[in-house]
Order: sequence, then C-alpha cells, then structure tokens
Amino acid sequence: MSQADTPGREDRLDALEQRLRAVEDELAIVRQVAAYGPLVDAGEATRVADLWTADGVYDVEGYFMGDRSAIEAMVESPEHQGLIGRGGSHFLGPAHVEISGDRAVAVCESVLLVRHEGRVLPARIGANRWEFARTDEGWRCTHRVVRALDGSAEARALLARTRVED
Amino acid sequence: MSQADTPGREDRLDALEQRLRAVEDELAIVRQVAAYGPLVDAGEATRVADLWTADGVYDVEGYFMGDRSAIEAMVESPEHQGLIGRGGSHFLGPAHVEISGDRAVAVCESVLLVRHEGRVLPARIGANRWEFARTDEGWRCTHRVVRALDGSAEARALLARTRVED
Amino acid sequence: MSQADTPGREDRLDALEQRLRAVEDELAIVRQVAAYGPLVDAGEATRVADLWTADGVYDVEGYFMGDRSAIEAMVESPEHQGLIGRGGSHFLGPAHVEISGDRAVAVCESVLLVRHEGRVLPARIGANRWEFARTDEGWRCTHRVVRALDGSAEARALLARTRVED
Repeated sequence: MSQADTPGREDRLDALEQRLRAVEDELAIVRQVAAYGPLVDAGEATRVADLWTADGVYDVEGYFMGDRSAIEAMVESPEHQGLIGRGGSHFLGPAHVEISGDRAVAVCESVLLVRHEGRVLPARIGANRWEFARTDEGWRCTHRVVRALDGSAEARALLARTRVED
Repeated sequence: MSQADTPGREDRLDALEQRLRAVEDELAIVRQVAAYGPLVDAGEATRVADLWTADGVYDVEGYFMGDRSAIEAMVESPEHQGLIGRGGSHFLGPAHVEISGDRAVAVCESVLLVRHEGRVLPARIGANRWEFARTDEGWRCTHRVVRALDGSAEARALLARTRVED
Repeated sequence: MSQADTPGREDRLDALEQRLRAVEDELAIVRQVAAYGPLVDAGEATRVADLWTADGVYDVEGYFMGDRSAIEAMVESPEHQGLIGRGGSHFLGPAHVEISGDRAVAVCESVLLVRHEGRVLPARIGANRWEFARTDEGWRCTHRVVRALDGSAEARALLARTRVED
C-alpha cells in the first residue's frame, strides 16, 4: 500500500458513498411525495397510509389523523370515496427537499381538482409541509401539515419552513 | 495487491457504479416525462414523438397512436394546433418512477388547461401510466396510457399500477 | 501497484466523481425551481431574490426585473402582497433540466391560481425558461423569462428552447 495514492482513494470512495447516499435519500423522498396523489386518487388506502410511519400524523385543516389506521379510514370514508367516485385529482407541485441526517422536510403546494356538473374545478389550493424520518422500511412521513392557501399567515408561514430545524 | 483491502475496494466501486446507474436511470425517466408538456405545447411534433420508441404506443381515451408517425400526426393535427394556437397547457404532476432492469414505469396525474373566451379552464384531469425501455438512444416510452379521472374504475386502477410487473 | 488493475480503478473513480457531480447539479437546479413557488407565495422576498444571481434577470411579460433588489421589490409590492393576502399559488410543473458545464437551462410550465369571491381560479398559464450558472453560492438563476401561454409564437418558442445553447 503506497502512502502517496491509497489514502486518497479511500477518501474518494468515502466521499462518493456519502454523496451518493444524499442523492438517493433526496430521490426517495421525492418518490414518496410523488406517490401520494396517484395512490389517494386510486383509493389505495393501505398504500397511502404506508407512506407514513405507524404513528405518523396527517393534519389537514379541520381533519386530524394521528396514525396509519386514521389515514386509511380517511381514504375509505364516504367523503373521499364520493370525491374519487365522481373523479378528482390531488395534484401536487414539485417538492422542495432538505435533508439533515435521518430527518428531512419536503415543502410543496397542492391543488384539489374536482368534477362538478361535467366540469373540472380547482376546489382548494394548499400549503404542504412534510416531515420525514429514515426508518427500517425506508423514508416515511412522520408529520404532514396541509393548510389552505387562503391568505392566512399560518399557511404562508408553513411554506417558508423549508428546513428540518425550522 | 493486498488481500485485506483491495477486494473491498473493488466491491465498493462495483456497488457505487450500480447505485449511480440506478439514480441516473431515474433522473433520465423523470426528464423524459418533464419534457412532454413543454414540447407538446410548443408543437414540436418530431421531438414529442422521439420521447417514444419507434413503435411506441400512446393510448389516450378515444385516440390510439401506434407509432411515432401517429404521434407526430396528432401534434400536427388541426385539433392540437387549434388548442395550442388559442393557448393551452398539458400540465403534468410529479412522476412516480419505478425501475426494474431495462424497464421502468412512471405514474402521474395530468391537467389539461385551455383558454376559452379570455379565461383559463381546466378541461380534463387524467391518470397517466408510462412504460419505458432502455434503448440504444436512451430511455424511451414504449406505452403510455391516459384515462380521464372521471370516477371510472379503469382510471383509478391505472394510478395504482406503479410497478413494472403490474 | 499493478499496472493491470490500478489505472482502471483511477479511471473508475474519476468517472464516478464526474457522473455524480452531474447528478448533484441536476438535483440542485430542480431544487431551485421547486423553491420558487412556495417562497414567493410565502412572501419571502429576500429568499426569492436569492434564487437569482446578484444581477439576475426576471422577465415576466410586462414586468422586467433586472437584479435582486427589483425581484425583492416585486414580492413586497402591493400587487403581490394583495394576491398572497387573498390566497394564491404560483404552481409550477416539473422542470426539464439540461446542463452544459457551468451553465444550465430548466424549462417548465406554470399556472397562477388565485382566490376570487370564494372560488379558486386559474388566472394565467405560462411558459418558463430559466438559465442558471454555477456560482460560489451554488447554482443561481441568471435569467428567467415567463410568457403567457395565450397562443403566441413567442411563448411556444420559449418552451422549445430546452438546451443551453438554444
């Protein structure tokens, strides 16, 4: 083992592994967020809930879900089934992801499009902040908050909290 | 070559190359999906068709295109030219990508926004499932199916088929 | 050091570093674009402006901003504050990114959703072309052009200019 080249190679391998892991983490979180709309509009209750940790929180204005079974129940509720039975889209914008070790935050906006009397209408626009944790199953959401973008200071503040420590 | 360190390095290089290729594949597919809206709304018929393989299928409810020339013809059709001549947007949501070797699937939702009498209207919402293959030209779509999110079981089932083997 | 294996390893490390840097660059640009909507709808004037270089240009039809302070002033303007005070969303589609050395281009579409008399309305659809440069602070936008997708040849041409040299 030559002193001149080998420590350099070891360092380069270490650095590559660390950087690649950060890239894979970011893509995994983007994938989790991208899965939500299609799965919830398909009515896949178990798979939607599985995007969260077992005790993950999904807090939508006026509707608080405190674990996976509450999230499943929302997808299976007459309200949600009625919405997707008429045709609707939980349309998400691009997720802005920041990672810090085993935690991450994704911030994005959302539009709920519904069908009403033969037309497609944007019914709600939302501010979304997702917190994620690295688990044995992969990255899972521990806390997602959605607030209507109706001019409230709360919704706007949510969009500004792009960092894990915010 | 020391037995202690070198096989480890070889394995690490192999693993890095394999993982990086998976990341590059995912980004390449995301890029192909992200190219569709801008290119079809620009009217770039040849470049739209080139997102597919030569015999790639584009199956939109009521409109079946079985190869690149059929896709080009759609972009150049009076219907599409009229739509983009008045101003319209084929707006896609974030693509959820899964890769298995030389094949991949991307699932996303879409909204068609059109201009009508000075206003912008969401005219259609859709469920999209893209199948991709790795080719000598890069990743190309072999089969894209779009179905209106109008409450039909077919459209919802499409959104749930996120895996290559589905 | 054996001639047979060692140059191969050096080359593989070089190639990995170069490919990983391209991936990191692409994700960094995607992240900058994904940050815009949430930050501008939050009213975070300084952070919005910081997505650009100090003398970066933001050219929206009828509104030309020639540096960071002009962009900050737009976010703080009564017009923008009124829009986000009633509730609005600058909703961006997925960015198509191409990189060439220290420059990059991202093309995407956008929808401005506004609240009006209790309803959410898509007020504008836009063609977006962002130019980026690698700077000491990271990737920053040097020039963003937005044109209404109203059927104009200019807006459509913008969407087709996906390459750095275009």
